[in-house]
Amino acid sequence: MITRISKLRRTFFVALFCCCCCFLIPVGADEGMWLFEQPPTQQVKEKYGFELTPEWLQHVQQSSIRFARRGSASFVSSQGLIMTNHHVGARNLHELSTPENNLLENGFYAKTFADELPCEGLEILVPVSSEDVTEKVNAAVTPKMSAEEAQKARNSVIAAIEKEAADKTKLRCEVTTLYQGGVYRLYNYKIYNDIRLVWAPEQNIAAFGGDPDNYEYPRYCVDCSLFRAYEDGKPAKIEHFLKWSTDGVKDGELVFVSGFPGRTERSYTREHLEFQRDIYFPQRLQKLYRREVIYSAFSSRSLENQRRIADDLGAVQNYRKRAIGQLQGLRTPSLWKNLPQSISLTSQNQWSKEQWSKTSSPEEKIFNACLLASQGRYFAYDFFELGEAFNSQTFKIARMLVRLAYETEKPNSERLKEYRDGNLESLKQTLFADTPIYEDIEILKLTDSLNHVRDAYGGTWGNWVPVLDFDLSPKEYATELILRSKVRDIAERKRIAEEGINAVKYSGDPMIQLALRLEPFAKKYREAYENEVEAPMTEAYAELAKKRFEKLGTSVYPDATFTLRLSYGAVKSYKEDDGTDVPPITTIAGMFDRAEKQKFKEPFDPPKSWKDGKEKLNPNTAFNLVTTNDIIGGNSGSPLINTKGEVVGLAFDGNIYSLSNNFVYTELQSRCVSVHADVIVESLRKIYGADRIADELGK
Amino acid sequence: MITRISKLRRTFFVALFCCCCCFLIPVGADEGMWLFEQPPTQQVKEKYGFELTPEWLQHVQQSSIRFARRGSASFVSSQGLIMTNHHVGARNLHELSTPENNLLENGFYAKTFADELPCEGLEILVPVSSEDVTEKVNAAVTPKMSAEEAQKARNSVIAAIEKEAADKTKLRCEVTTLYQGGVYRLYNYKIYNDIRLVWAPEQNIAAFGGDPDNYEYPRYCVDCSLFRAYEDGKPAKIEHFLKWSTDGVKDGELVFVSGFPGRTERSYTREHLEFQRDIYFPQRLQKLYRREVIYSAFSSRSLENQRRIADDLGAVQNYRKRAIGQLQGLRTPSLWKNLPQSISLTSQNQWSKEQWSKTSSPEEKIFNACLLASQGRYFAYDFFELGEAFNSQTFKIARMLVRLAYETEKPNSERLKEYRDGNLESLKQTLFADTPIYEDIEILKLTDSLNHVRDAYGGTWGNWVPVLDFDLSPKEYATELILRSKVRDIAERKRIAEEGINAVKYSGDPMIQLALRLEPFAKKYREAYENEVEAPMTEAYAELAKKRFEKLGTSVYPDATFTLRLSYGAVKSYKEDDGTDVPPITTIAGMFDRAEKQKFKEPFDPPKSWKDGKEKLNPNTAFNLVTTNDIIGGNSGSPLINTKGEVVGLAFDGNIYSLSNNFVYTELQSRCVSVHADVIVESLRKIYGADRIADELGK
Repeated sequence: MITRISKLRRTFFVALFCCCCCFLIPVGADEGMWLFEQPPTQQVKEKYGFELTPEWLQHVQQSSIRFARRGSASFVSSQGLIMTNHHVGARNLHELSTPENNLLENGFYAKTFADELPCEGLEILVPVSSEDVTEKVNAAVTPKMSAEEAQKARNSVIAAIEKEAADKTKLRCEVTTLYQGGVYRLYNYKIYNDIRLVWAPEQNIAAFGGDPDNYEYPRYCVDCSLFRAYEDGKPAKIEHFLKWSTDGVKDGELVFVSGFPGRTERSYTREHLEFQRDIYFPQRLQKLYRREVIYSAFSSRSLENQRRIADDLGAVQNYRKRAIGQLQGLRTPSLWKNLPQSISLTSQNQWSKEQWSKTSSPEEKIFNACLLASQGRYFAYDFFELGEAFNSQTFKIARMLVRLAYETEKPNSERLKEYRDGNLESLKQTLFADTPIYEDIEILKLTDSLNHVRDAYGGTWGNWVPVLDFDLSPKEYATELILRSKVRDIAERKRIAEEGINAVKYSGDPMIQLALRLEPFAKKYREAYENEVEAPMTEAYAELAKKRFEKLGTSVYPDATFTLRLSYGAVKSYKEDDGTDVPPITTIAGMFDRAEKQKFKEPFDPPKSWKDGKEKLNPNTAFNLVTTNDIIGGNSGSPLINTKGEVVGLAFDGNIYSLSNNFVYTELQSRCVSVHADVIVESLRKIYGADRIADELGK
Repeated sequence: MITRISKLRRTFFVALFCCCCCFLIPVGADEGMWLFEQPPTQQVKEKYGFELTPEWLQHVQQSSIRFARRGSASFVSSQGLIMTNHHVGARNLHELSTPENNLLENGFYAKTFADELPCEGLEILVPVSSEDVTEKVNAAVTPKMSAEEAQKARNSVIAAIEKEAADKTKLRCEVTTLYQGGVYRLYNYKIYNDIRLVWAPEQNIAAFGGDPDNYEYPRYCVDCSLFRAYEDGKPAKIEHFLKWSTDGVKDGELVFVSGFPGRTERSYTREHLEFQRDIYFPQRLQKLYRREVIYSAFSSRSLENQRRIADDLGAVQNYRKRAIGQLQGLRTPSLWKNLPQSISLTSQNQWSKEQWSKTSSPEEKIFNACLLASQGRYFAYDFFELGEAFNSQTFKIARMLVRLAYETEKPNSERLKEYRDGNLESLKQTLFADTPIYEDIEILKLTDSLNHVRDAYGGTWGNWVPVLDFDLSPKEYATELILRSKVRDIAERKRIAEEGINAVKYSGDPMIQLALRLEPFAKKYREAYENEVEAPMTEAYAELAKKRFEKLGTSVYPDATFTLRLSYGAVKSYKEDDGTDVPPITTIAGMFDRAEKQKFKEPFDPPKSWKDGKEKLNPNTAFNLVTTNDIIGGNSGSPLINTKGEVVGLAFDGNIYSLSNNFVYTELQSRCVSVHADVIVESLRKIYGADRIADELGK
């Protein structure tokens, strides 16, 4: 599935490198995550002969929904019916489940309005209007200000703009930075916070094919769930919603995706991409490979193990698959042909010992930062500051307790940023969260990550981390640290947090002691990374962005920022590398065929309702389809829309080739994968007896 | 399971480093794989108060069997009944299976002698006598001879000794080099080659717990199968066989393992072990981790994939588990305390750029060879000469065709050794073998290994392998090489092999062209490795061995060489690292308990016969047990023997801590895992209705 925005935020490294701004678009490719305010009118007209009118755009924009911080959605009836992905709504299904009825497993259907289940804490945001506030923001900055003062002034005027707008409109108002500071835009969102669950199919058909088929195609998933917005206890009356198409959708047809793509890095320089290809992804994959094997071997030893490590294993598999897909993209020479030329170092041995140049252009600064990262700055930072060398909840908690004690003694402005007053509450929420921690899994993970450090540094690892106990093997040491630490007890955590420095300093807890001894090294590696890699890179990308924006302005689309975007494309097959053509649209018969070939073994076992109801279903009903739309994580749950502004599908995934979309879009094989509108209605009527809803959809 | 000797031979790297000779034994540990001619009489007497008499030794020796080239076995009745592991006999079960009856799955029991199934091509070897021929061998060498001439002279006198002995005794006579040339010993084996299958349980109980429980404990496996030796069409009359114990075996009891351990490397210097710990195993594991993930993801996508990649995946998992176990041993400081001091470099950054010393002791030569290996000599050799960069059958075949053409044009003595006349027949057998090769799996493996090369060399890989096509991604290139190559067609292979150089040189086959372009690089890396790493190391270890043998002689045991050895030990529990005590002996009730907890899911699903027969079984019957015996791959199928010379069990595995036995034995946690004799008889009688055989065993 497309990673939800919450997952996306965990990709620490890519996320730490700043992203920005704007691109040269190869003529004719269906590229771009366009602002509704600067739509690709000309491109669509030239390629598809269709005119994007202001009315069409406004209607689609106001039918689009940001679903919490998780993904995208849309209104699909005048009575507030909301369509999103099953995997986007999964958290609510989980929260609404009882020991007797697991809604993820069993699905859910509310026969009447009264049966619709309120989802506590869930809110959706509808972008009703927006406004360019670039001038207002920039007016706050004077030429005499330092970079830091300028940022402060901008933050302060942005806060004022947001407050003023909110007071006036009673909407949620957010200023978003676009084009790396080229444009500031105020978005006004109408909030609905009485959201109720209407219908969700069983997990086994929503995610038919499970992890193995994730990012693959052909697919057969009803990755859909329906909610409803209420106002004043009644179904909300909605003016702008997407009607259900009566004509289906055909091969080659023009379609749009309207949603909230999370993040792209399409301004990366060639050298930065080479670094990603040659250093970053190979190192990241090394970690993911070993973890997947270790977790998977543990999982296979018992059902109890399997249940307890399932989330960790699933996350690692998802990351691994994405990393392989991204790396595959970066290693495809045709991808590089679509990149703008920057300085070219490809013929050199670019990761050699010497810096390439001292005084330098932004591209050279970026190259030098990558070079330093490749020479161990990132390794040390990742292992010892981000804590990947001590992969365990126990270490994370001990580290937080140590830093909480020492940092909160300092004036607010001198603290590490995550310990400043504004962040303390959410930090404490994490610190005191009562989530289960399993000793054996903690030992397993810590052993592996200690081994990983030793693998990475060989015989020299003692020089890097002279704080560890070398009289024990990684496994013995991990066992001792985990079993003897008391921080998994929440009361103990609270006691230490309250007592502060002394409770930490004189603690007999071996993990706290380790975190304490580690501090000077961790901070040293953090500073080196932030000052020598991160800061110069941020600065260089800002320079680049400024130059490009001055030249191209808003004629190109900005990087994705989890604000509403429009992407255009067509239903279109593609060739696998081995020459196989994939069908642009799959069918219900295809799903049953795949299930049968896999002998209905998990995850290829459709739910009982489908097996029992097979005869009632039209086997030729369209199931999933691929289109050339340019999408990325965050787009999950976006409606697939035809030229009439009607729903023809529901985006839920990208194929393996789409995974490099964060760097560059290539139309040849990259595809958006959607649930076809037809299979949703067919199953609502024939499997779930949900005629009430199918009627409401108008089909 | 303990790796069979055939698998063991595949561990190319460890195996390429020479091994040798003799050790200092810490007082009191149950260490050693002793020659029957130099038994640990004194050690056993001191620790256990038991006297190993010549009669006891002769009886056990002549009851012991080498089972083909695969493992160990023993005679357990006067009528030629042979006991070995199920996994050692598995190949025969496979060969005897029919489309209607898979003997691995269903098991087998011959109700009468007439039903016993002849195993074509299977032979067993019984070591009936042996003789020290060191003087005769050394007499052939004069001081004036060069090293090469001396080796030639030795080989020639060894051949003569073997021939003379064979003519005289009508036995299979083999001279084995022990103590790295300190001793030459002639072994005379009686051969039986009419071997018939008597009984084998179902795979599901023979390997209960499957791969997940491999190398783990507690265990519940009836890893046993029974064969019978025939002579002149009748059951062989056997004088020396092991009686079945009537008393079982108790916690703490002294037991022996008599069998054929394959290979150990207990003379490795500290520096060599540091190299293994810091460089070799981490690199090896990187490869295994990524392959396991790639194969496993492929496997999960369909049952068809699962079936086709099962062997590859199983092999990788087995290697991975062993490598992790060995590395864990090497990273346990207590293991190093048991090592003899050689030069100590541990406080230095030993894998730095400079050679440590130019003129040097054997230890220093070994260190320098390791150093060169760590600086890329091994990587390049492994990738381009051993072909790991092009992991596919298609490449292996293409490479063989290229070399066959060019090498056989040369005089025999100038060829690469695997292409000399003596090796050509077996090479051609491999080259023309009709084993299934799957295009999609070939592409999968080749893509991954091409990616691995790129990961390893980063942006500089073009410098290492300027023969590759850089206009394609690894996946595109792999796809093209595999799909366009014709060498998977055996007729095509034969045509090329017959036509020789021209057929290769002017071939349009892209894989043959690649192999051809690669040749100069591959050979360069091979020479560098052989001359700068392998040869100095072999020479240095021979020097070391000579010194040690002069000092200690045969008072210590020699490295394992797949000749008969005796190991002593006791039934003994151990503590896991987390402090858990394991039970020294498991029971039938324990097996059913584990199965139930895993909801009888594969591989924790005992066969129907056991589930149906559960009520008949005595739940307290002993199942598997752990002992302190010093064992290694090749010992699979060895009998576990009490002081009366009776069978009390059947060795089939070592626990995870035993995996470092190839480097050093530590008694604390390293354990041999055996099937208890009782569960064999209990199941023979109550599950398999095999009273005939239980009676024959005398119980």
